[in-house]
Amino acid sequence: MSMVVDRRDLDFVLFELLEVEKLVEHSRFATYDRATIGQMLDAAQQIAEERFLPIAAELDADEPVFRDGKVVMPASAGAALQAYAEAGFFALPFAEDIGGLGAPWFLNTAVVGMFSTANVALTNYAFLTIAAANLLDTFGSGALKSVFLPPMLAGRWFGTMCLSETQAGSSLGDIRTIATPRADGLYAIKGSKMWISGGEHELSENIVHMVLAKIPGGPPGTKGISLFVVPKRKVGEDGSVGGANNVALAGLNHKMGQRACTNCLLNFGEAGECVGYLVGEPHRGIEYMFHMMNEARIAVGHAAAMTALAGYLYSANYARTRTQGRSLEQKNPASPQVPIIQHADVRRMLLAQKAAVEGAQALCLYCATLVDELAVSTDERRSDELAGLLGLLTPVVKSWPSEHCLEANKWAIQILGGYGYTRDYPVERLYRDNRLNHIHEGTFGIQGLDLVGRKVLRDKGEALFRFVEQMRQTAAEAARIAGLEEEARVLSVSLDALQAATRALIRSADFARQLANATVYLDAFGHVVIGWIWLRQAIVAARALVDNGGSEVDRAFYDGKLVTCRYFARHEMPLAQARLALCGSLDDSCLAAPVEMFGG
Amino acid sequence: MSMVVDRRDLDFVLFELLEVEKLVEHSRFATYDRATIGQMLDAAQQIAEERFLPIAAELDADEPVFRDGKVVMPASAGAALQAYAEAGFFALPFAEDIGGLGAPWFLNTAVVGMFSTANVALTNYAFLTIAAANLLDTFGSGALKSVFLPPMLAGRWFGTMCLSETQAGSSLGDIRTIATPRADGLYAIKGSKMWISGGEHELSENIVHMVLAKIPGGPPGTKGISLFVVPKRKVGEDGSVGGANNVALAGLNHKMGQRACTNCLLNFGEAGECVGYLVGEPHRGIEYMFHMMNEARIAVGHAAAMTALAGYLYSANYARTRTQGRSLEQKNPASPQVPIIQHADVRRMLLAQKAAVEGAQALCLYCATLVDELAVSTDERRSDELAGLLGLLTPVVKSWPSEHCLEANKWAIQILGGYGYTRDYPVERLYRDNRLNHIHEGTFGIQGLDLVGRKVLRDKGEALFRFVEQMRQTAAEAARIAGLEEEARVLSVSLDALQAATRALIRSADFARQLANATVYLDAFGHVVIGWIWLRQAIVAARALVDNGGSEVDRAFYDGKLVTCRYFARHEMPLAQARLALCGSLDDSCLAAPVEMFGG
Repeated sequence: MSMVVDRRDLDFVLFELLEVEKLVEHSRFATYDRATIGQMLDAAQQIAEERFLPIAAELDADEPVFRDGKVVMPASAGAALQAYAEAGFFALPFAEDIGGLGAPWFLNTAVVGMFSTANVALTNYAFLTIAAANLLDTFGSGALKSVFLPPMLAGRWFGTMCLSETQAGSSLGDIRTIATPRADGLYAIKGSKMWISGGEHELSENIVHMVLAKIPGGPPGTKGISLFVVPKRKVGEDGSVGGANNVALAGLNHKMGQRACTNCLLNFGEAGECVGYLVGEPHRGIEYMFHMMNEARIAVGHAAAMTALAGYLYSANYARTRTQGRSLEQKNPASPQVPIIQHADVRRMLLAQKAAVEGAQALCLYCATLVDELAVSTDERRSDELAGLLGLLTPVVKSWPSEHCLEANKWAIQILGGYGYTRDYPVERLYRDNRLNHIHEGTFGIQGLDLVGRKVLRDKGEALFRFVEQMRQTAAEAARIAGLEEEARVLSVSLDALQAATRALIRSADFARQLANATVYLDAFGHVVIGWIWLRQAIVAARALVDNGGSEVDRAFYDGKLVTCRYFARHEMPLAQARLALCGSLDDSCLAAPVEMFGG
Repeated sequence: MSMVVDRRDLDFVLFELLEVEKLVEHSRFATYDRATIGQMLDAAQQIAEERFLPIAAELDADEPVFRDGKVVMPASAGAALQAYAEAGFFALPFAEDIGGLGAPWFLNTAVVGMFSTANVALTNYAFLTIAAANLLDTFGSGALKSVFLPPMLAGRWFGTMCLSETQAGSSLGDIRTIATPRADGLYAIKGSKMWISGGEHELSENIVHMVLAKIPGGPPGTKGISLFVVPKRKVGEDGSVGGANNVALAGLNHKMGQRACTNCLLNFGEAGECVGYLVGEPHRGIEYMFHMMNEARIAVGHAAAMTALAGYLYSANYARTRTQGRSLEQKNPASPQVPIIQHADVRRMLLAQKAAVEGAQALCLYCATLVDELAVSTDERRSDELAGLLGLLTPVVKSWPSEHCLEANKWAIQILGGYGYTRDYPVERLYRDNRLNHIHEGTFGIQGLDLVGRKVLRDKGEALFRFVEQMRQTAAEAARIAGLEEEARVLSVSLDALQAATRALIRSADFARQLANATVYLDAFGHVVIGWIWLRQAIVAARALVDNGGSEVDRAFYDGKLVTCRYFARHEMPLAQARLALCGSLDDSCLAAPVEMFGG
């Protein structure tokens, strides 16, 4: 079995649950059908298994170091990314007229997902390049695009996102990097950027930094931030690569996990002029960045889910083969030991992982199809609805996997016991890798503020209540299916709790109390959404079992969906209900906690 | 402020909550009073701060390696343990007639706790030595004790516990190490032991392994296991250290955390005869080991709590000094940033940590006082009750901190953001260190089976229901205190849920279903117990505020106890109620999950 994907489950989500064959009927995706999607997934799976997975432990143990002015890391890293490039995956989601493969975003997500499962740290270089190219493609001038996009889509130049500074992480309005206009229309960039993933390395011919900076004289705060393309090496109008552009590596951060991906403190313009190209209009940098935020945050949540998938696949395989202990009925201590998957508590830990991983994956891919639907929508009202739904789900899809798929990685370690705690097995690395996802692309707390402040309060819950109705339709549908009545009821009750909590939040006039409940609300809302997508999976599975028993393997697969939906409804949904009740009370225990009680 | 202890809180727990001054009035502890306890804590704090804390990061980065037949690690490790020995702490909990300092177990726990907060991996060497000496002291012959105990109590010889083998971790009955009787009454030990913490090193003159092995011809399973003392170097009757005893290091395990403590695969008797001394009677090894289990498991839970305390102290300090963002009212982006502790969600993460850490510490120290009370009790009925309560709480005190104080360490990282994810700050190491505690000394699942199988079902809930009555008295007491009515009500409702779930479990005749709910039941029971001990803390704090306003600092401290009790009652107790309802339904979703659904 593969350790980078459960293809049966991925196919189920894409073709049975999300029915992407209908989506790719759109002319935009004319070259894609079930067969070509399958071929693309096959190709990705093969490269992920053969080139990315085998070097994950090595790149973790032998992390990049800064030596003689260069970042040094094992050569296998560059070779693996080269294979990714040669397969055309850097070009996958881009339009054909700019040299892309015109794939829908969900397919890019699924492809990147296999690489993330195999080796999430290495995959970051590719993901960041695609994200940078996407930003440039959307907001850059024709001249900028013609120079920068072709080598990025070919995987010859990599990209980064340079937002944070040491004094400005969550608080982007406080950045200090300056972009001074030059006579030739370009800008001189000066300042330091922190936490830059892929900020320096020798893996590509050039690095294209997408840099947020302030043009002197602009408005204060986030409204005075502009976006620039700043290459590591100077670039001629013909796309030729020249000398250094004075982007200096000031230091590598030594991370707990995701070590194969360099994380850098970069100094721009310290030793000489550093040239930047303005993207779009001045002072609109934050707006541009946020425009790409949905995709970026889906990607982070998806990476969290895929890191947990790796742990789930590995620990399930281990549980089938590792023998320890005996069944409860077996009283003879001399009888052979049984595979630990026979123990109910080991299956509990597998169910917890499966529920988190497959729930999160389904949600991430669902959101990716919303990106595609929005991209091809021509109906303004439908576009507004899609944008509203995507905006609402973005903090969930970013945060829920970061929280609960990390928890899944914890259980993967637990199933391996002492072995799982050693670096001879991958599960401890996966746990370390996954811990990052709650921090980058906006922390858990920031996502909560986004959800409650921007997505729920601002439209008085309109998008949320519309989505609740959509989820209620699923509950109503499930209520009519034999065997799903109880799970349907649990979703309905949870939706009642969600609505009540949301109404209470909206009714309150106390902004501080509203926001003080934001993170708990986000987490509980996420649970309800995951419970909903599990019920959708269960409906599809139940129908498949009725329509067509299929092979024994297929029946086990669909049964697994029903069992996991039931598990989530029983074990997890009541926790969401409890948390929603808390939010509905406009709890002030954190808000009112005096600073002095924490010592100092 | 100290980063190894919150002395105000420790003093509160010992003297105000647990009233240990009454306990040490017993003649057994005649040399201890509040002043001498304080001096001992002062001495421990100083050595922990000066010798253990500063080298924690170094020992993690520069982990022990096996080179030229020896384990090599930084010299600072040995020097720190030497300081621990010179202060007399190896001898602390032992009776004065064998060279100990006669301290109560709670004091030993508090002392070890400061070292665990500073450097849990290094402290393991001391803790394991004390545990091995304790075992020998309780069950060894006078001759064995006279040879082995003096150097162990002096910290010149260290100790280990050798239970697991590669094929037998949780399933101890399946060990294969053999002890063959020799003509001289000693035994020849042959076999391999896995996961042996402190199994090999050059930190002490000798290593005293406490080894479980089977004497040929004995009964199968756990009933045929005996306990042996097996020294690394041969020992003369006069206590002199001779040549090697054929205990060979076959390999060091490379752990995710707790790296300063070697973890070994040891081969006994591979290259020549390895001599062991039988402890007590043959075939009673498991019984002896389990006799010491309460203390050992309290120690693991306490180590988990202390590792989280380290993260809490560090992140609280960080939150007071790191500036980022502005208050909700401040609309001017040019105004100065505020310390992040001003943000409600940061205080939520601090409250979550404080609730877990101080709740767990109070419970661990409470259980340690039960060990002391049991040791001095002369009333058989009271002893039975104490033993029942301690047995009931042991799986809780081991597991709850392993789960929820690990979670606390997760929030400590989150407060530091990207910085917290780097090895330049201690919080990621603490998270890695703490992940071990759910695995060793019996996994989470094993603790659940112990609680439900042995401690609840076997006596039909007698000990549990007696403890519920004790907790109800706390609720009744709190209900009469202004400001605690709601928290008292929450505990009462939770106790109702606990009783109902327990009755349902007991009523069921289905052993498989009973045990399939064991881990969830354990976790929920733990929550109720922690909620109870928080209410006890709140009662003491509320009275202190009424009786005596104290200084402003004191008022902030007591207010903090009230706020945290409220936080736990509101945010956490409803989760326990939901989980107890699940257990009460004799949920079979994990038990019934078919093995095939997990692929393969």
